Amino acid sequence: MIDPHEAWRLLEPHLAPTPSLETPRPQALGRVLARSLSATVDVPAADVSAMDGYALAPPEPGESESPIPLRPLVGESLAGSPPSFSVPPGAAARIMTGAIVPEGTDRVLPVERTRPHDGRPHDEEADPSSPLGATPGAWGEYAQERVELAVMPPAGANIRRQGEVLRRGAPLLEAGHGLSPGALALLAAHGYSQVPIHRPPSIRLLVTGDEVIPPEETPAGGQLRDTHSDFLLAAARTLGLEIEPLGIVGDDEAALDQAVARGLEADLFLLTGGVSAGQRDLVPAALQRHGVRTLFHKVAIQPAKPLFAGLREGPPRALVFGLPGNPASAIVAFWLYLRPVLRRLLGAEDSYLQGLRHGVLESPLPGAKGRDRFLPARVHTVDGQTLCTPVAPAGSHDIAAYAQGSALVRIPAHAAPRDAGEACEILSLADEREG
Amino acid sequence: MIDPHEAWRLLEPHLAPTPSLETPRPQALGRVLARSLSATVDVPAADVSAMDGYALAPPEPGESESPIPLRPLVGESLAGSPPSFSVPPGAAARIMTGAIVPEGTDRVLPVERTRPHDGRPHDEEADPSSPLGATPGAWGEYAQERVELAVMPPAGANIRRQGEVLRRGAPLLEAGHGLSPGALALLAAHGYSQVPIHRPPSIRLLVTGDEVIPPEETPAGGQLRDTHSDFLLAAARTLGLEIEPLGIVGDDEAALDQAVARGLEADLFLLTGGVSAGQRDLVPAALQRHGVRTLFHKVAIQPAKPLFAGLREGPPRALVFGLPGNPASAIVAFWLYLRPVLRRLLGAEDSYLQGLRHGVLESPLPGAKGRDRFLPARVHTVDGQTLCTPVAPAGSHDIAAYAQGSALVRIPAHAAPRDAGEACEILSLADEREG
Repeated sequence: MIDPHEAWRLLEPHLAPTPSLETPRPQALGRVLARSLSATVDVPAADVSAMDGYALAPPEPGESESPIPLRPLVGESLAGSPPSFSVPPGAAARIMTGAIVPEGTDRVLPVERTRPHDGRPHDEEADPSSPLGATPGAWGEYAQERVELAVMPPAGANIRRQGEVLRRGAPLLEAGHGLSPGALALLAAHGYSQVPIHRPPSIRLLVTGDEVIPPEETPAGGQLRDTHSDFLLAAARTLGLEIEPLGIVGDDEAALDQAVARGLEADLFLLTGGVSAGQRDLVPAALQRHGVRTLFHKVAIQPAKPLFAGLREGPPRALVFGLPGNPASAIVAFWLYLRPVLRRLLGAEDSYLQGLRHGVLESPLPGAKGRDRFLPARVHTVDGQTLCTPVAPAGSHDIAAYAQGSALVRIPAHAAPRDAGEACEILSLADEREG
Repeated sequence: MIDPHEAWRLLEPHLAPTPSLETPRPQALGRVLARSLSATVDVPAADVSAMDGYALAPPEPGESESPIPLRPLVGESLAGSPPSFSVPPGAAARIMTGAIVPEGTDRVLPVERTRPHDGRPHDEEADPSSPLGATPGAWGEYAQERVELAVMPPAGANIRRQGEVLRRGAPLLEAGHGLSPGALALLAAHGYSQVPIHRPPSIRLLVTGDEVIPPEETPAGGQLRDTHSDFLLAAARTLGLEIEPLGIVGDDEAALDQAVARGLEADLFLLTGGVSAGQRDLVPAALQRHGVRTLFHKVAIQPAKPLFAGLREGPPRALVFGLPGNPASAIVAFWLYLRPVLRRLLGAEDSYLQGLRHGVLESPLPGAKGRDRFLPARVHTVDGQTLCTPVAPAGSHDIAAYAQGSALVRIPAHAAPRDAGEACEILSLADEREG
């Protein structure tokens, strides 16, 4: 039985990311970038307006004082096409957010700081108070012919310069970056239709045990429905990975040999059952016959102590995990070891207990003996604190407890029981808002 | 412009879960149970051994003292089939973990507390020291004929009783439960091949704007590649939902009308662009023509202020969101509003800022003016604390910043800047171990 951190250290040398391949952008979601990518366009692509308003030619002599003479309008620049006109000195052009700044202009004033003076009454009554010799519209209303400016903005005002956010050729996303929805949007902006990712590792799963039947069948005396397959297939899918199930094999040496040979063709071969001591187990012998070298067997954690990890050097190389037949143990073994293993193969950063963080107990937590202990827990957030309710399983086959929990709470070896209100260490099994 | 919490309150009356349907168990991953389910089998299904060892008939007179007379073995109970024999008084049977306890026995002693006395030498040398008249094997070794017990365990020892974890008919999972991999394993154990879930809401997406082109095309002057579709389709997929894209429509009233009519056939209709003030926008008019009533337009958050929410009473009823054309705004609007909306339609608990929790700044955080401000941030966990590095966007079109971040950090309205080491509020956009 080895220390759980030592178990991880024994795995680490064998967790190099899988080779890279190009995948269509939408399918890259959740994958990890295998190669750094550069910007393919300037952002913004041209000098554009940051506001809806008026692009202005530089001020004429005398325009620095108020009132600024009315400016005639010579055109409109809309998003989507470059303006086909230029703006002569003393003139202005309507411009929309994101539209290209017309030739001859060097600043933009938002429409809210302007009002129209189009030589026609804004309402039926003319406004004799206007000092500008024309009837003004309301501030913020668009002009058709002439516009009054509340102020003369400085050069460059409200213009986003070509490339000011990002220059073509500049680093865009680095190798190792997790491809979130935001990252896909960024790749779309730069026209990457294919994305270099690490190939999803192939995974095969063999369930062993004379007592195990598919969930669709009704158990007779002593038989148990297979729950490992459902859990593992679903857990892998949360990482965007598919597992190929090899079915259920009983204590039949020839059938086991055949299944093990098929399992070892995958990058990762998972077996369930047949790793606890003392059982009439043919699994260790079958793995040995196929050249699987033990990395570790039995880890000082509870549950999941009988966890086995091995390596078939190959080629082809295969990592092998023997998961305990106890479903709760298999669940804990997945979250503690398999999940970070799979994420490392995909190119992500991860390790044993990475992300373990503080929570506050909402109900008492039992202590632990000589092994680190992991209980399922419900977590939710109140006033910024993560509150944690451990769900004590009614036994090692109490999958219901693990079905409830959205997190694991860790009880370090030899820890004394803790009361509600005390701190605890939690490992989220999912986005904690689901808890 | 309304308060962001008030915006959520205006949405809440319209977020009843979708009707339920039965879906095959593997496809229920990530969904929410629409109806409470009961246990269909006792767990354990019979009285079974919790250990590898020996099932024992109750002690005979005189067996309470040590040494306990050797017990003859009458059979073996293996997992997977009920024992075909019964154990007479004074005898024992080998038993495996999970195997049914044979008739006549009422307790189990683990193999580690036994050794064989099979009437044949354990090694070549006989052991004259044995008080039991036979050559013992090693402790923990299995006996073939007769077994020595280190102690007589009490009645019931190491037996898991039928139904002690769960009784057939007892509550298994309650309506509203999120279907994690562990929950699917539990449903497999109880033979549920179909699972009642809330129907995934139908979602349609219309991208508007003369300047917007598909990511596959190369932008000419003033054109922008569509990034909203990539982001939204991927973000929906993180919730297991598919969006039907209706394409890109420019400033063409007839085309817009047609697309809006199609969009409103879905439970949720998303539009991007056309919701900022002052643009030459046909979108608000088109929505109004189709009977969409405004729930709110403009929220006091930065970015994403121009967010629009509306309702077409129907039938068929449709919720409508107009997302800002600014990609960063659309990303923030999704995480703050659309994600909890979709989760509520799926039957889960969620709300605006649910899960907002404390972090510690690793670099300075700017302040905010009159609106709550949200910046992308990288988070990781060290010594149980969530450390947060805000990534200040270089402008409202800096999708790169949002592509980097795995969380949003909230800057409350009117907050002063904060230094590294101070507390902050973070909303995780994904499992934080990915950060």
